[in-house]
Amino acid sequence: MREKSLQVHEQLKGKISVKSKVEVNSKEELSLYYSPGVAEPSREIAENKQLVNKYTGRGNTVAIVSDGTAVLGLGNIGPEAALPVMEGKSMLFSEFADIYAYPLVIDSNSDQDVIDFCKMLAPSVGGILLEDIKAPNCVNIEQTLIKELDIPVFHDDQHGTAIVTTAALLNLMRLTNKDVSEMTMVLSGTGAAGSSIARMAKKLGVKTIYGFNIDGVITADKYDKYDDVVKSLIDEGVITNHPNSDADLAMATEGAHIFVGVSAPGLLKPEMVQNMATDPWIFAMANPNPEIDPQTAIEAGAFFIGTGRSDYPNQVNNVLAFPGMFKGVLQSGATIDEDMKLQVSHALASYISDEELAKDYILPSTLDKGVADSIANVIIEGVRNERN
Amino acid sequence: MREKSLQVHEQLKGKISVKSKVEVNSKEELSLYYSPGVAEPSREIAENKQLVNKYTGRGNTVAIVSDGTAVLGLGNIGPEAALPVMEGKSMLFSEFADIYAYPLVIDSNSDQDVIDFCKMLAPSVGGILLEDIKAPNCVNIEQTLIKELDIPVFHDDQHGTAIVTTAALLNLMRLTNKDVSEMTMVLSGTGAAGSSIARMAKKLGVKTIYGFNIDGVITADKYDKYDDVVKSLIDEGVITNHPNSDADLAMATEGAHIFVGVSAPGLLKPEMVQNMATDPWIFAMANPNPEIDPQTAIEAGAFFIGTGRSDYPNQVNNVLAFPGMFKGVLQSGATIDEDMKLQVSHALASYISDEELAKDYILPSTLDKGVADSIANVIIEGVRNERN
Repeated sequence: MREKSLQVHEQLKGKISVKSKVEVNSKEELSLYYSPGVAEPSREIAENKQLVNKYTGRGNTVAIVSDGTAVLGLGNIGPEAALPVMEGKSMLFSEFADIYAYPLVIDSNSDQDVIDFCKMLAPSVGGILLEDIKAPNCVNIEQTLIKELDIPVFHDDQHGTAIVTTAALLNLMRLTNKDVSEMTMVLSGTGAAGSSIARMAKKLGVKTIYGFNIDGVITADKYDKYDDVVKSLIDEGVITNHPNSDADLAMATEGAHIFVGVSAPGLLKPEMVQNMATDPWIFAMANPNPEIDPQTAIEAGAFFIGTGRSDYPNQVNNVLAFPGMFKGVLQSGATIDEDMKLQVSHALASYISDEELAKDYILPSTLDKGVADSIANVIIEGVRNERN
Repeated sequence: MREKSLQVHEQLKGKISVKSKVEVNSKEELSLYYSPGVAEPSREIAENKQLVNKYTGRGNTVAIVSDGTAVLGLGNIGPEAALPVMEGKSMLFSEFADIYAYPLVIDSNSDQDVIDFCKMLAPSVGGILLEDIKAPNCVNIEQTLIKELDIPVFHDDQHGTAIVTTAALLNLMRLTNKDVSEMTMVLSGTGAAGSSIARMAKKLGVKTIYGFNIDGVITADKYDKYDDVVKSLIDEGVITNHPNSDADLAMATEGAHIFVGVSAPGLLKPEMVQNMATDPWIFAMANPNPEIDPQTAIEAGAFFIGTGRSDYPNQVNNVLAFPGMFKGVLQSGATIDEDMKLQVSHALASYISDEELAKDYILPSTLDKGVADSIANVIIEGVRNERN
């Protein structure tokens, strides 16, 4: 894989291209698309800024912005090293949703730098996808931009996994006729992705959510140890206070119905799965190696296992969510709030019919190019109904 | 033109597209181009930042950055209204040089904002083309960025016209066997474009350059009236002090050999041309209407007339310079300094052979797609020789 990947990246010299949609071979074409003809749409937009999406590609264009501080599992490797990943995201936008995406990796010294950059950039793009920005900074950056900009802003590392995990929970309820309002979830990992998963799970109605991180099980008496992300999960009542502040993961998972891991390889042992409630649902999403091997989890009694791996069924991957969601919000003029994220989860879940639904087909394939349009159409339809 | 232009811009919804270079139809492709394979080039670049141009499209990508403060002849119409123009520039980069260009129009409040934005953006792109930023701010912005970034930065409105004008002067010397070191030039308009034309003309050896602007002929005794751009032209001895500070344009042009206008329609009267030296060279580049009608200029005795208009020969248009220059500097790793600009003028001039050269063919056609490669090759060759 290593040699092959380096080789194709060197040969491609970038996974995306920017091309003119028209040929320029005559004075007439040059005059029409460029000077002096281009002054006409410019004049119209100068009169009414809203027309920018009518006369340009802005309404189908997003910026993928990263400061390179939390790239894949590689950490703070800097903006240049983040560029292949952002080009990859742009490639996915193109392949799955026909959206134009500029991969912009930025040399930033602070949260405020990232915020300033995105605010200055906003007239150029219809939306902003934040990527691979370290926690807890990413939360402040995203929240500020959502407040201050009128275009959709979405931090994929926080909410992408959460939306797909929530879709899986919806389909697991549909398949088993169980209700999460009677279930206990243990969440291992309370950073960018974990906190968003917890919030969406709570919104979905999960009864009890215990959190687990480097400081052990989350309890109110350790409050001062936690960063702002975890503190707000406690403040908002998203994370349930565990009765035993010394509980290890084995004790925390005992009798639980759902395990969600966005943490580290091998943390979930087979005997822990055995001690969970009957037929537990396991999300082991650490990359590239999950919290428990899928086969091991099934043998230990798991009803469902979802991972980040492409070589097992039920791959939980952001690519199932962001292309279709952006297509939907760009085309409908909507922004992305808590309700929109849950709506995307519902759209993704309902892509699988009752007849097809099975424990090995809780989530669509990441290669299924019908998914994005299906999500986009649900969003567009929803916005249309709301406005009527 | 107006209706047609609005119609095609609305139909196209953007003149450029961003597309994946590869198809993603299998798990293998997804793993190779995206996660986990993409981690390999990221790791390499994290070790050595220089490798970013080896494994990504950065080395063939430029950002077109504008704050929308001086768009075409329309003035400060804001970033959104500038977007059709920047998309047009991106279209030209694609059509004439196969360069990927992101049109980025920014919401900026100060020179420092534009500078900060470009500095943050630098890890993403191989070069920056500044566009339609008002004078005198554009000079400070460009100078600061050239100093602080190690990628080529070029403000097209300042130097694009200057490079093409200088190429025309070179070819006029070749055609007529005259030498500019014995000539007097009158420059009407001393803003972004005019100041760069004056500097290049001086470097080319033009003996005397009189400047003319809204305050009349430029003389040292009006120094305090001028903005920093004009002051520095005086300080550097680029502009010659006119002996009569009350001279109007008729007086200033009397006996002059060259008129260069980047000012306003109709300023140059036929009788002024008649009173210039024999066979004068006239550049009347105000857009869309020149300082003098080309036919009128010829009838009044002009040997040569160049304008910004596509319906006359010798169109002086930036598109003759920037695509090939950027292709050359991106591929050779050079930056853009005074010598490089003059080198581009020479490359552009020599695109026309001695046999072809004629007063109606002093500059190549703006539609000639061989020009950019020819300029790029001269630059690449020059850099190679310098390094050997």
